[in-house]
This record gives sequence, C-alpha cells and structure tokens, in this order.
Amino acid sequence: MLILLVNTPTEAQIETVMARVREIGCKPHLIPGEHSIAIGITGNSQALDPGIFTSLDGVSEAIPVTKPFKLASHDFKHAKTEIHVGSVTFGPKHFVVIAGPCAVESEEQTVRIAKAVKAAGANVLRGGAFKPRTSPYAFQGLGLEGLKILKTAREQTGLPVVTEAVDIQSLELVNEYADIIQLGARNMQNFSLLQAAGRLRKPVMLKRGLSATVDEWLMAAEYILNEGNEQVILCERGIRSFDNFTRNTVDIGAVIGLQLQSHLPIIVDPSHGTGRRQMVIPMGKAALAVGANGVMVDVHDRPKEALCDGPQAILPSEFSEMVATLRKMAPATGAHLVGGLG
Amino acid sequence: MLILLVNTPTEAQIETVMARVREIGCKPHLIPGEHSIAIGITGNSQALDPGIFTSLDGVSEAIPVTKPFKLASHDFKHAKTEIHVGSVTFGPKHFVVIAGPCAVESEEQTVRIAKAVKAAGANVLRGGAFKPRTSPYAFQGLGLEGLKILKTAREQTGLPVVTEAVDIQSLELVNEYADIIQLGARNMQNFSLLQAAGRLRKPVMLKRGLSATVDEWLMAAEYILNEGNEQVILCERGIRSFDNFTRNTVDIGAVIGLQLQSHLPIIVDPSHGTGRRQMVIPMGKAALAVGANGVMVDVHDRPKEALCDGPQAILPSEFSEMVATLRKMAPATGAHLVGGLG
Amino acid sequence: MLILLVNTPTEAQIETVMARVREIGCKPHLIPGEHSIAIGITGNSQALDPGIFTSLDGVSEAIPVTKPFKLASHDFKHAKTEIHVGSVTFGPKHFVVIAGPCAVESEEQTVRIAKAVKAAGANVLRGGAFKPRTSPYAFQGLGLEGLKILKTAREQTGLPVVTEAVDIQSLELVNEYADIIQLGARNMQNFSLLQAAGRLRKPVMLKRGLSATVDEWLMAAEYILNEGNEQVILCERGIRSFDNFTRNTVDIGAVIGLQLQSHLPIIVDPSHGTGRRQMVIPMGKAALAVGANGVMVDVHDRPKEALCDGPQAILPSEFSEMVATLRKMAPATGAHLVGGLG
Amino acid sequence: MLILLVNTPTEAQIETVMARVREIGCKPHLIPGEHSIAIGITGNSQALDPGIFTSLDGVSEAIPVTKPFKLASHDFKHAKTEIHVGSVTFGPKHFVVIAGPCAVESEEQTVRIAKAVKAAGANVLRGGAFKPRTSPYAFQGLGLEGLKILKTAREQTGLPVVTEAVDIQSLELVNEYADIIQLGARNMQNFSLLQAAGRLRKPVMLKRGLSATVDEWLMAAEYILNEGNEQVILCERGIRSFDNFTRNTVDIGAVIGLQLQSHLPIIVDPSHGTGRRQMVIPMGKAALAVGANGVMVDVHDRPKEALCDGPQAILPSEFSEMVATLRKMAPATGAHLVGGLG
Repeated sequence: MLILLVNTPTEAQIETVMARVREIGCKPHLIPGEHSIAIGITGNSQALDPGIFTSLDGVSEAIPVTKPFKLASHDFKHAKTEIHVGSVTFGPKHFVVIAGPCAVESEEQTVRIAKAVKAAGANVLRGGAFKPRTSPYAFQGLGLEGLKILKTAREQTGLPVVTEAVDIQSLELVNEYADIIQLGARNMQNFSLLQAAGRLRKPVMLKRGLSATVDEWLMAAEYILNEGNEQVILCERGIRSFDNFTRNTVDIGAVIGLQLQSHLPIIVDPSHGTGRRQMVIPMGKAALAVGANGVMVDVHDRPKEALCDGPQAILPSEFSEMVATLRKMAPATGAHLVGGLG
Repeated sequence: MLILLVNTPTEAQIETVMARVREIGCKPHLIPGEHSIAIGITGNSQALDPGIFTSLDGVSEAIPVTKPFKLASHDFKHAKTEIHVGSVTFGPKHFVVIAGPCAVESEEQTVRIAKAVKAAGANVLRGGAFKPRTSPYAFQGLGLEGLKILKTAREQTGLPVVTEAVDIQSLELVNEYADIIQLGARNMQNFSLLQAAGRLRKPVMLKRGLSATVDEWLMAAEYILNEGNEQVILCERGIRSFDNFTRNTVDIGAVIGLQLQSHLPIIVDPSHGTGRRQMVIPMGKAALAVGANGVMVDVHDRPKEALCDGPQAILPSEFSEMVATLRKMAPATGAHLVGGLG
Repeated sequence: MLILLVNTPTEAQIETVMARVREIGCKPHLIPGEHSIAIGITGNSQALDPGIFTSLDGVSEAIPVTKPFKLASHDFKHAKTEIHVGSVTFGPKHFVVIAGPCAVESEEQTVRIAKAVKAAGANVLRGGAFKPRTSPYAFQGLGLEGLKILKTAREQTGLPVVTEAVDIQSLELVNEYADIIQLGARNMQNFSLLQAAGRLRKPVMLKRGLSATVDEWLMAAEYILNEGNEQVILCERGIRSFDNFTRNTVDIGAVIGLQLQSHLPIIVDPSHGTGRRQMVIPMGKAALAVGANGVMVDVHDRPKEALCDGPQAILPSEFSEMVATLRKMAPATGAHLVGGLG
Repeated sequence: MLILLVNTPTEAQIETVMARVREIGCKPHLIPGEHSIAIGITGNSQALDPGIFTSLDGVSEAIPVTKPFKLASHDFKHAKTEIHVGSVTFGPKHFVVIAGPCAVESEEQTVRIAKAVKAAGANVLRGGAFKPRTSPYAFQGLGLEGLKILKTAREQTGLPVVTEAVDIQSLELVNEYADIIQLGARNMQNFSLLQAAGRLRKPVMLKRGLSATVDEWLMAAEYILNEGNEQVILCERGIRSFDNFTRNTVDIGAVIGLQLQSHLPIIVDPSHGTGRRQMVIPMGKAALAVGANGVMVDVHDRPKEALCDGPQAILPSEFSEMVATLRKMAPATGAHLVGGLG
C-alpha cells in the first residue's frame, strides 16, 4: 500500500498515518517529495483495505500495490493447474471443445444433438437445465427433469456433462448429476453460491460477470479456492461495452492476460460472447490462437425451434467444420485438441 | 416486434417469416421498402423473443417495440406506488432520509449512531449485518447477531430498519428482523432470491446492478412484482463506467427517466455512488433536485475505525447539515421531507 | 511515481531501476516487502511517463502518484477562476444560464428565439453555425452566414454569444464573431485546435469528450492554458455508458469532483446530456444543486421544424419555467443567478 | 424508420405523424397494436433523422431500420476492396504485416529498426513523426524532420511507409512523404480532417476512436469515401472499457463483424490495443485467426530508450518469431502473408 498525503501536510497528519500503520502491525516508510509526502507500507501479509487510510485527515489516496487475489495467482502456484474430467484435461497444451444445446428441451432433442456433437469431435456436452433469464416470463429450463435427460445423453455418448447451477438448491442437484458445475455470469458475485461450490469436490466452471474486472473475477474464483475446491475453470463469455454491434464484447486480451497471471485454465464461450451465429467460428479460432484451454459452443440442429438463444447456435455441420479447422490450426499454435487429433 | 429482412429477400424467405408470425398467434404486416422489406407484428400480448425470428433465413434484425417489463411500467399502473413503513412514506411528494453505518459492528456503535442520525432528522436506519464483499478475506458482517443489534437500535430510536439479505437463508432472517429488505447490486439478477423476496409481504429495496441497464433493472423488479409483492423501492447506487475518478458513476438521468416510465418509488445512495465523503452531500442535493423519493447515506462517527467503507461515510455533524440543506431546498423542488419539516 | 518490482527481483534488476531513476535526475527510495520490493521516486518536477520504467526488466508496474495536470489544478492556483463576458461572470457563487437553438437555421429563427430566451432570463445566447455531424449527409450548419446571424441576434438582444469552432479555419471566424469559443466533445483531443485556441485571448468552453476521463479532460484544458489562455470553462455534456436509456449519461459526480480539484468554472449541458426534452429541466436543477457554475440549454420554439436535435430542445415557455425554478432553488444552494435575481 | 406512438394515441396525433411522413416525400404505413400504434416509413432514399419524428406529440420512439452508412457497406459494393501500395495488397486472402517504432526519434534509430523489421518479414514500415499526446508536456514528435527520416528509411529498405497526420497542415506533408496516411483514434471524428483526406488520392488508414461504435467508425470512413477517396483501411486498436487490466480492450468481434458488413480491409494494432509487450504476439495471432487483413506492430530494439510507448514495443527478435508463427498459422486460416511466404 502506498499512501499519498495532501500538499504540504501537517506534522500531526503525518504522525497519525504513521501511527495507524504501526497499529495494524505494519511498517511505514516516509518518502518525501517536493510539495508533498508519500508513505509506503510493508510487512502486511495480505492486501490491505485502502479505506483504513483514506478516512484519515491529510490522506489524498491509498494505492494498493499487492494484488488482492492470492490462491488464484501465479505467484502462489507456479505450475498450471490441470483439471481432469474423465479422459478430458483442462490445462496447458490441451484445447477442449464443449458443445451442445443452450437449453435442454427434451430427451429426444438433447440426445440427438449430443450424438451429433460427439460425432463431430466434441469432448464435453453442454446443456442448460436451470436457465437464468432476464425476464420472469421467459423459459426457465426443465430443472431436475433436464438433469436426468443430460444423464441419459451422457450414457448414450460417453461425453461428460457441464450444466449450470443457479442457487443452493440446484447446486446440490447439479453436483449429483453433472461432471462440471457451471456458475453463470449473473451469479459471479453470488458469494454464498461460490462458497457452497467451494465446499464440493467437483470442477467448477466460473463465467465472468458482464462487467466484472479481471481482478473481481479472480476474487470470485478465490472464494471457491478458499473453501478447498481447487478445480476452477474460468470462462470468458464477453463483457458489456458501449457498443451493441455484437451482443457482448469478447475480451480476448483478458484471456492472454490471465494466462500470464493465473494458473487456472481458461476457456472462451464464443456463442454467448458474440450472440451471432456467423461470428462463432472465427471467435473460436481466436480463442485457440491466443492460447485458451478450450471453447464452449452452442449447437442446435433446429435453431428456429430452439426455446432459448436460437440465433447464436451453429448447426452440427458448421460445428463439424469448426472442429476440423481448429485441428488444422492447432499444431501451429502449440496446442493439441483433446483426443490427440490436434 | 419489427422484423427487418436482408436486401432483396426471396419470396420463400418472406413467406417463412410470415408463417412463423402466424404460428405464434400474431399478425404480420408487410412493409415494402426500396431495397428491402420489413414485417411488423401485432397481436402479441407480451414482449416477443427476437431469437424466434433472427434464426430464420433472410432475417437481418428483429427489433422489439414493446418494453419487456409490464408490472413495473407506468402503462400498467398509472398511479404512483406509495409504500408505507411505519409513519414513513416512499412515494410522490415525500423525500425519505435513510442513514446509518455501512456495517453493524457492535451494539454500542450501532445504537450510538442510530441515535445521532435520528436526532439529525433521519427517517429510517440503515446498517449491514450480511455484507457481500469482493474479497473472501474481508469482514463479512455479524450476521444474525447484527440483526439483533439492529432490532435493539430500532427499539431505542423508533426508526424502522433496512438491511441487506444476500441469500435465501439470510432473507428469512432479515424478513423476521427488518422493516425493509435490501437486495444488493451484486444480487440484482439472482433470480431465485428475487422470487423468494417476491413471495414475502415486506417492502424490498432493490439496488441497481453495477452494469445493469434500466430495462434489466425493471425486469429484476418484475421478478418480485410477479410473485405478488408490490412493495418495491428502486435504489440507484452508481454504475460502472470507464472512468474511476469516482468509485461509481451516479446515473442521475436514470432517476429522471424512471419517474417518467415506472410507478415505483426510487431513491439514491450517494455514499456508495460516489465513494467519497466530500461528494455525498452535493449528490444528495442532486437526488432531491431531480425528484427522487429519498436518499440513503452512510454515517459513521468514527470513520477511521469503521470495518467497512469508512472513506465514504459522513460524520453525524455533516449529516445534520445535509438534512438542514435538504429541508431548505425541498419547497423549491415541490417535495417535502417526511415528517412535515420540508 | 512508485515502481513495483516482480516477486524476488534480482540484485541486477533492482540496480538497473535505481540507476535509471538517478539518470533522469530523480531520487530512488527502496521500500522492501515480504516477497518483493517497491521503489519510490522523488525529486521530479512534473509527472513522469510510466513507460520509462515499465520497459525495464523486473518491473511489474509503475504507478503515477502526481496528477498529470498542473495549470488546471487547485494545487497550482487556489483561488477559483472568474471569467467575465460582458456583465456575465462564470465563477463561484454565479450560475449562468445559456440558451438558444442547437443550430442557427435562419436570421428570422435565431433572432426570434434569442429574444424569447432573453425575455425568459437567459444570460448568454448559444447557436451552432459549424455543426460536427456523425453523418456526412446531415445538415452541417450555415458556416460564416450563421456567425453573421448570431452577430445580429447579439445586437438585437444584448446577449453575448457562444458558438462552436470545428477546425483552425472556423476558429478564426468564431474568434472574430463570438464572445465565447466552444470546442466540442469530438474535438476534445484535437490537440492542434486546442493549441490554436490557447493562443487566442477569448474565453473557451471546452466540452468533455464522449469517453474522456476527467484527467484527460483536464489535460485537454492544460493544452489551452499552457499556451497562455487562462479563460477556460469546462462543460459536462454526458458520457458514453453501456446503457442507451438516455442518449448520454450525465456525470454529475464529475462536476462535484471538479469543483474539488480544479479552479476552472464548470457548467452542464442537460440537453445533449440527456437527449430528451422531458429530462432537461430536472437535470438543470441537479446542476444547480451540486454547485455547477451554469447550464447550457437547447431552446427551440418550433422543435418539429428544427434541422438538428429537435427532440432535446425545450420550448421557450418551458425554458421560462426552468429559469423561475432555478431562481427559487438558488438561495438554498448558496448560488445566485447572474443578474442578481437568484 | 419505424415510429412508435404512445399508448392510446389520439386521432390528431396519428394524423400529424402521417402528414409529416408525407411532407418529407415518404410513405407511412399504419401498424395497429393492442394498446398502441406504430407507423412504418418507406420510400426514403437514405437514413432519416429520428429527431424529425420524436419531437412530434404522441411519438414515443423512432427506430432507424436503415443503416446510416452507405458507401462503406457491403450492400453498396459487394466485392471486397483491394488497396495496392507498391507490391503490397490490403484485401481478401492477404495478411499485411506493418512494423516499426512508435515514434521516429532519429535517422539512425529509424533506419536501424526499419532494416531489422524488413529482415524479419515486415511489408510496411510504421513510425510516428506527428504524435498526438494526452499531455502537452510529452514528446510530440519530430514533425517534418521525422517525415524526411522515414523517406530515407524507405529508400534504404524498399518498405512503403505509413505515418500519422494530426491536422490539415501535417496532412499535406504526410501526403507528400508517406505511402499511407494514418488518421488516429483521437481524430476519428475530426470531420474537417476526414474530408481533407477524402480529397487526396492516397490510401488512408482510419483508426477506430476510443469509444466509437462500429457504426460511427463506418460513418467516419463514409466522410472520406464521400469525397471520392475509395482507399480506406480500417484499423481496430482497442476500445475503452470499464477494466484497465489491459490498456485498451481489443474488440476482435468487431473485426469479424466488419468483414460481414463492409467491403473495406481491416487490420488490427495489437501494440496500442493491449499496451503490454507480452500480449502483442498472441493478439496478432488472434487477428490472423479471425480473418483480419493485417496487423500493425510497434517494434523497438532499445525499448528502454524509447521516447514513446516503450512498454508495448516488442524486440526485433520477438517480431521475427511473430512473423514465423503467423506464417505457420496462415495456411490453416485461408490467408497468406503478403510476399507469398504464408
């Protein structure tokens, strides 16, 4: 923490700040300047709250110099985390392809699409049973029935399943039925839910909040890690910007930056990220190019009948072409697609 | 809904869209243009999902022309909603002043501050017992003990109490102990929690999400209203912008716009909105000037000892001055402060 | 400047940074930490470029601790700047009301509206002769002819005139015809234009860029001040946010913050800020409430015939009511309207 | 244009709108609804100003259904534009690599770096002679002397040169010395400058404004195209978002979207886009992956001595590795690097 004092602070103001630093068991370092004075703090074992100092007289700003996250940081754990789900690995050098319908609509629909994406090369099946929707009047998912359908689809295809939990109650059910628990963008700072997921021993895919900074996202992961669950997969799904040209703005730079700062695997959701079918494949290629550890794609064979997010789902034939392209690109990027085909 | 077709659409494309509109029980209206064609839809009883159409061939865009919210809208209910909490009224012509510490820290601290804000003219006491914090390592509130302290403070001052619930479990407790249930910015789209609050019969103060559009905010209110709880108070607390000059950007224009579009009362939280003590009073004056129905202010008599958000709390003496200024301004703005002193 | 080193930096890395600090004539201060080291810099006479250090090996971040602006800062000049235009004063305790049509369309229209706003209590006449428009196909203003019309309107009403310059050529003309030179949001970082305006000796009203931070805005003012023109009036006109509920998001908090950090007068443009007629008056009241030094309002008596921004213009009768309300509110806020009527 | 009326509009309100539509030479189409009425407009030859209608009584909204840009649109010109600069082609199937120092600092430095990037495979040399800087106290470039140095570098390497013009005066000089004229983010809506560039017959590289929507960016291109200069290259360089984790947020989705909507070539600037050396290469790969027509990269062999943006410049050795990787990836993406080596 670096504390900046106002111009020409009084002796008393300086002394108060110095005393406060010592009170919390840290050491103050006076840095004299032309017009003002700064005080550096050392000896803190974790990030300090700037508010401790900004409320003191004579303090103009308190700048944190330690990143607030710890367990999620590269500094804490140098080796990249590998998460194993059946034969699938989320981690360095692997590129996992997750695909399936946005929402589970019926057993027939889900099994049909699951078989199609499996044939095209998907490694994991996605499908929503609990759907958080902006409107209370929109389709909210099949719930438990949807989870049972996903189980059937897994039995028939061998694909592990990822699906979303939206509250404590659905979390318990998802934990029972799924292989990976998804926590959605709108729940990224639902701290009770994060903690509950942290007490489970199943991989958690944590989507980035619509306007969450990367630091806040890692702090949300920290809530899960801090409860003892080390299997966290980050998922970039587009942030909110001033432009509605695309539904969201996929922050490809954050993927690059996270690979530098954190040991956790990170994947990209180009379907929710762009919201447009024609953009999904190029964005998936970008994810591979920058070193993401996978993609998650909405696939639907009858998009015009889809109960949810039809316009962003690609067809099984397009998905098949996408996987083929990713496999062609993979060697040049240093990754290989899970399954050894990259 | 207005559907825009691509340039020079084929007959088959046009017919498919027309058929789809009829299938969902609505009526299509062909609007021929120079290069393209649009199709207007009427006969829908509620907002349609654009995705129904954008996944069809030949469709370039589907523009909703009906606002997605209904129960929260002025069109649905012309008279402004009045919410009564003891002798306090949230509604037109009233300006409610809520004040208290950011967090309940101890009985001594809470009662002391409650008496101070009561003496200065506050109408409702605020204080957090459950604190959603970005970091798992930060103070998370006293929980049930905090609620009991708030009850004591209410008994000693007569002030009704507003405090935050962060999940289903704390919601039940808050419902038992508080007079108004606060749902925070990070939970604005925690739909399970909204629905649970909608099943209660106690006023709910719904804070705007950090990057929620006004439409999304009203849709969140809709989740509560739709379960039968008509007592929703909106609270603007600043949105996230590109500039971190202030902690958040108070969207005063949204307050004005909501008074035009919705019948629900709306208040402003200048403390969390600005994050700086020196900005709280002017922002509170702005809230009154634009016709908000109240303000909620962090007050702490020993800000340097505060366990949470110290830098944004004003002193009791400053709060007292704030209330006096608001009272002076009120007649010119057409509002009167609750208590008849405006 | 505070330089943060990576975890466990080498001796050589530390020494390189120390040497670099000394090379530029400053003094390094070593601040040892648990895992890392920070280096504080003192002795710099102005803000340093972080890039000088972040390109060195072992440096993870360089945090500026001196604000980049100087001449615009309160620290540089404690007394508030007062700018006099005829009998009008932009400065503390004064609240100036500027009004007129968005665009000068004809002599008849401009003089008619000028007389109406004068009668209602306006202190300055606004009207665009050079209009920067997003589309090349939109009305771009009458140019020199428009300036001549404004001159006529001034002669007939006695109101000083503010109008926009969009490039060097129009700047010369505006300097000849107008009393205050407006530089628009899109030109806020047109540095050549800022410098040229800085070489004139006429008040400049500098609008905030659509996504300019407050620091960038003050740096733009610094370009003008640095050339010797000390008469800069800042104008908040709404920033771009993620929500298009209002055309722009008026950042009332920035107005409050600028009064704390800068000595320059600041006004608000509620017309461009909100883009909606019904929001102009409440937003003008908010400007007065937070201590702005004035407002600038689009007024048009025949908005449906307006060639530009009709929907945000208020009628002369509404403007008259607005001025009356501001006058009623002014005493409670400590300001008085120019003309002694507040 | 679709005009939405308020709930239960009066006959007179409807008739006024219908009449106004006819007045401007268009045709109104009444679309009756349950509670309200919409009016569709056809027969307009170009985008209409919503303000024509929103200022009428009874109108709640006017929604444009025609994109405002024309000459930049795919609908206007189906074939992709190819721009030839010497032996280099900006257009489909080509991927151009532009590299060089952020700023021209001296002849020795510029020629040295130019030779290095040429050897590594660059197709075009970049280097700033006129530098728009946020601060008036920062290095502003060598001006005309810098242009002369760039000319020398071109003579010694054979690389065509791109450099920025910041105003009318520098535009004339840049037109004389450079092969491609760059217009920067801060001047994207400097309409006088756009028009002046439109009157030249040299390729213009138009960078996206920091918070420009894609529509506004294409409208800025439209200003150039409309003056008769058809050689416009778009350059995505990152937009401003709420997060400062990276300096800017590269909007890769916009690149994908522009390839669908416009015929103009588009390149990416990963150096300014990310602001961090370690992110430049991955972002360059993403640009290739999504089908951009090239990249522009800051390269400096002595970044710690750079007068401008040192921290984002990569070393010649890193640049060489970048080109090698792009060449390996290119075949899988369907592009080939200019020079036939892809």
